[in-house]
Amino acid sequence: MSYGDGMGVRVRSEERRAAIVTAALEVIAERGYRGASLAAVAERVGLTQQGLLHYFPTKDALLVAVLEERDRWDALPARPRRLDLLASLVEYNAMRPGIVQTFSALLGESVTEGHPARGYFTERYAQVRAGMADVLRAEYGDRLPNGLTPERTAPLLVAVMDGLQYQWLLDPDAVDMPGAFRDFLTLLGEG
Amino acid sequence: MSYGDGMGVRVRSEERRAAIVTAALEVIAERGYRGASLAAVAERVGLTQQGLLHYFPTKDALLVAVLEERDRWDALPARPRRLDLLASLVEYNAMRPGIVQTFSALLGESVTEGHPARGYFTERYAQVRAGMADVLRAEYGDRLPNGLTPERTAPLLVAVMDGLQYQWLLDPDAVDMPGAFRDFLTLLGEG
Repeated sequence: MSYGDGMGVRVRSEERRAAIVTAALEVIAERGYRGASLAAVAERVGLTQQGLLHYFPTKDALLVAVLEERDRWDALPARPRRLDLLASLVEYNAMRPGIVQTFSALLGESVTEGHPARGYFTERYAQVRAGMADVLRAEYGDRLPNGLTPERTAPLLVAVMDGLQYQWLLDPDAVDMPGAFRDFLTLLGEG
Repeated sequence: MSYGDGMGVRVRSEERRAAIVTAALEVIAERGYRGASLAAVAERVGLTQQGLLHYFPTKDALLVAVLEERDRWDALPARPRRLDLLASLVEYNAMRPGIVQTFSALLGESVTEGHPARGYFTERYAQVRAGMADVLRAEYGDRLPNGLTPERTAPLLVAVMDGLQYQWLLDPDAVDMPGAFRDFLTLLGEG
């Protein structure tokens, strides 16, 4: 396979794909997915739009690659092992606002009609709720100290993580995201 | 003032403005704010784009009107009087997915760079957190049964409401939004 720019080897191609995904993450963080254009992503990595289409034939294909990349970084939320690791993840997120911003903007857009990430998020949330319920069961058994089941608590745990992200992104000085999440974990542990 | 279409009286003009705001709400719910065009809004109310610009000279002016209209409907979240009214608001929201979708999509977009609603949401969340803290203090005094202050609990309350909306919008059959919110209120009341 020849790319016309002389970088036909596979390793180089994978590096280029990774650079495109990173650029897409940045552009989405700045403009949202609907506002992000392939042209802007191409410009950021020094490709023509035609050159970009060689790696990702559609904008949706690029979006899926972005979301998959995000999941690779965050193996934690889908399969967290312990509640204290979740608190660490929230602390980690507080140090990378760009990624949190991209995720939050995409989640927001995904609830609009016909958004290409809607299926991804719907499926992902079902998995994340199930994973959280497993973690809660491992920690507390079939009932938490407050009497709720792990399955009824899981959506609240996920909601607090997501909701705090919006408040923190909008006003990082006013909202201590990791501290607030630890407060919530304390709430869960009391009965 | 003459509009060229012969409806120059003030009452008629306000009705038209209201119709435009309603149409904008619908278009934003379908496409998100960045995807919503003035042309689509104009078409929905049977105006030319030029005719629409008479009422709202910019897209941002229309967005602000949409957000203000939403706040008029929802006097509750900014100034709720009691915790049980909050539960009623969540139940009410579960019957109007379109409004919740518009709000959630705009909140998501607002965290992207330079979004015109960013200032609105930042200011609104500061007010909502302060209002929630007042409600919690009226209900529980300076400490909740779990030991947290109203000020530390308020961001969690807001986060749960917002986060549950995303999960419910993506998968209404899997997430009982009002039930989950009542579970959270129960959590708050136990120590």
